[in-house]
Amino acid sequence: MGASPPNHPVILAGGSGVRLWPLSRPWHPKPFARLAGDKTLLQATLDRFATRPRFADPLIICNRAHRFLVAEQLREAGVTPRAIVLEPLLRNTGPAAATAALLLAESDPEALLLIAPSDHLIRDLPGLLAAVDAAAQAAAQGWIVTFGARPDSPETGYGYIQQGARLDDCPGAFRIARFVEKPDRATAEGYLASGDFAWNSGMFLLSAGRLIEEMTRYEPEIVAACRRALRDAAADEDFLRLDEAAFAAQPNLAFDRAVMERTSQGAIIPVDIGWSDVGSWDALYQVSDKDADGNVVSGAVVAVDTRNAYLRSDGLPLATLGLEDMTVIATADALLVCPRSRSQDLAQLVDRLARDPRYASLVSRRPEETET
Amino acid sequence: MGASPPNHPVILAGGSGVRLWPLSRPWHPKPFARLAGDKTLLQATLDRFATRPRFADPLIICNRAHRFLVAEQLREAGVTPRAIVLEPLLRNTGPAAATAALLLAESDPEALLLIAPSDHLIRDLPGLLAAVDAAAQAAAQGWIVTFGARPDSPETGYGYIQQGARLDDCPGAFRIARFVEKPDRATAEGYLASGDFAWNSGMFLLSAGRLIEEMTRYEPEIVAACRRALRDAAADEDFLRLDEAAFAAQPNLAFDRAVMERTSQGAIIPVDIGWSDVGSWDALYQVSDKDADGNVVSGAVVAVDTRNAYLRSDGLPLATLGLEDMTVIATADALLVCPRSRSQDLAQLVDRLARDPRYASLVSRRPEETET
Repeated sequence: MGASPPNHPVILAGGSGVRLWPLSRPWHPKPFARLAGDKTLLQATLDRFATRPRFADPLIICNRAHRFLVAEQLREAGVTPRAIVLEPLLRNTGPAAATAALLLAESDPEALLLIAPSDHLIRDLPGLLAAVDAAAQAAAQGWIVTFGARPDSPETGYGYIQQGARLDDCPGAFRIARFVEKPDRATAEGYLASGDFAWNSGMFLLSAGRLIEEMTRYEPEIVAACRRALRDAAADEDFLRLDEAAFAAQPNLAFDRAVMERTSQGAIIPVDIGWSDVGSWDALYQVSDKDADGNVVSGAVVAVDTRNAYLRSDGLPLATLGLEDMTVIATADALLVCPRSRSQDLAQLVDRLARDPRYASLVSRRPEETET
Repeated sequence: MGASPPNHPVILAGGSGVRLWPLSRPWHPKPFARLAGDKTLLQATLDRFATRPRFADPLIICNRAHRFLVAEQLREAGVTPRAIVLEPLLRNTGPAAATAALLLAESDPEALLLIAPSDHLIRDLPGLLAAVDAAAQAAAQGWIVTFGARPDSPETGYGYIQQGARLDDCPGAFRIARFVEKPDRATAEGYLASGDFAWNSGMFLLSAGRLIEEMTRYEPEIVAACRRALRDAAADEDFLRLDEAAFAAQPNLAFDRAVMERTSQGAIIPVDIGWSDVGSWDALYQVSDKDADGNVVSGAVVAVDTRNAYLRSDGLPLATLGLEDMTVIATADALLVCPRSRSQDLAQLVDRLARDPRYASLVSRRPEETET
């Protein structure tokens, strides 16, 4: 990297906590769960962006309900954040991105932001870092860069980005032709075959100034609200508490929707880095190492005549006999059994639990976290 | 019954505790488990034989390892036993039957023994009591009466008894033509079609004197050993501890094998009383009441899109999605998931647990209970 300015990781730590229930919960969503290995997804994300001088200290943005989870997981990982920005209510990624840009632009409008969710898995770190370096070059020239994960199956649950013409001065980068939200199966198969579509990884690299400029162009209310929320924020140790009234008064939009799908400055760097958003137990099964029987096993598990199953117990001994293609999860306070093929329907089950007074506490949000 | 002498229930309380793991355990076998409803199978058995004057106070025979379980379950059920006879080591039903007969014959050789395992379900109590009355009439004439449960499926896991000629002076009773151990499927189907085969329920009614006489004829060592074990027994509150050295020195035979399959005095009363030996989770499923989805549900369970499953949690909330024909059992210290069709193979799983030092304690016997 030499004299290149550092990238400022802006880590978005949140999520609904539904799709990996019972390991994740509304008050303990995916970034905070130890899905694979000893580290939580948030900690694994921080690890990716720990090399100096390529990266500066990270800025974390999370719901205030999660502040101690975040602080504790940073402490455990030995990470000193630039700040932990607390959102007073649930908002999509547009306001978070604008807030981060405004905060970093105070000291340097040219600062490069690497906006990254913290609920993904990425298997190829060198590949990611090479892509970050390429993206930083493009961002320094004013491009708003997305990372497009090479698809290896016709997923219907992901957003897709079609790449356009190559950017002459930016190796590896392309113009964005268009964004497509969750396509149907046939369409997704066409995308996969065409070779110029990628999954939207949710990671972006751009300068603080450019972000503010484009957000002001398309969603000026977001910029104004975030500016006020920062002006009236309360600093409290590492925490920066955004003002609630100001932060509430803005459109609730994803950064993709607010800026990326509209700007003429969008670029994409296609990457093949083993990316997965781990959006279901089956997705986690797919990306995990299997034993000789095709099982992914974690914790206190004894599996007899069991094949192609995801078996996890963080609590009681779990014994299985004669299972195929099943998901069994035991946490300290709940058990889930469902076929792997049904794991994307978990929201149905969580809804049902939420409506039962005996079990609602297993899936309910905390009052302070409620969207208003 | 009027002036008829009472029947002395001789309740055999034991079992291997393997087939309904993890609810039953080697140190907590089936009779002591609450399989259906609030009562344990032992307590349900005692209930059946509680009417006076048809029945006298029961004699309980169990392994000494289970003495406090038995005493506590009797106390809870409000039952005063004639005695709780403690076997110093694991033995089949032959020695238990001989011991009971010798003990009761001390006060009355004509006493009628109703020998009954305590790990069965019987749904039709009036039907059972009518059969007991008929059997008592036959036993008073010297017959050794078994109760043959009407088969409703070609079970290959049960013993069968073929009935012979009707006994003239004993309404409802027949001579025994022969015993058959666990037949193959085709044979069992033939038995079912023939109409003169019944499942061996393991219950017997006969006089103490006749039992001693026939056991002495076929297995004199058993009678001699049990006589010595009783002579040298130690009485301790309700417990009667059989002498270990004496009790150990005898053949380890089932009462069926030692006497019933050999005697010319055997009779059978066919009964249709909703009998099940609950020999597997699937057997328990079959005899249990189902909800509209065909599920048998017990405890903290939320089932979505789930059909024909046996779902039981005595501990953590269990949530299922998209299951069919599965068994899921959660106790306070272990979890089992297997298809209903595999529940008769549970011994394989228990074997595997026993060989794993981390889990052996979930299935191991206590030292004092070990067969020698």
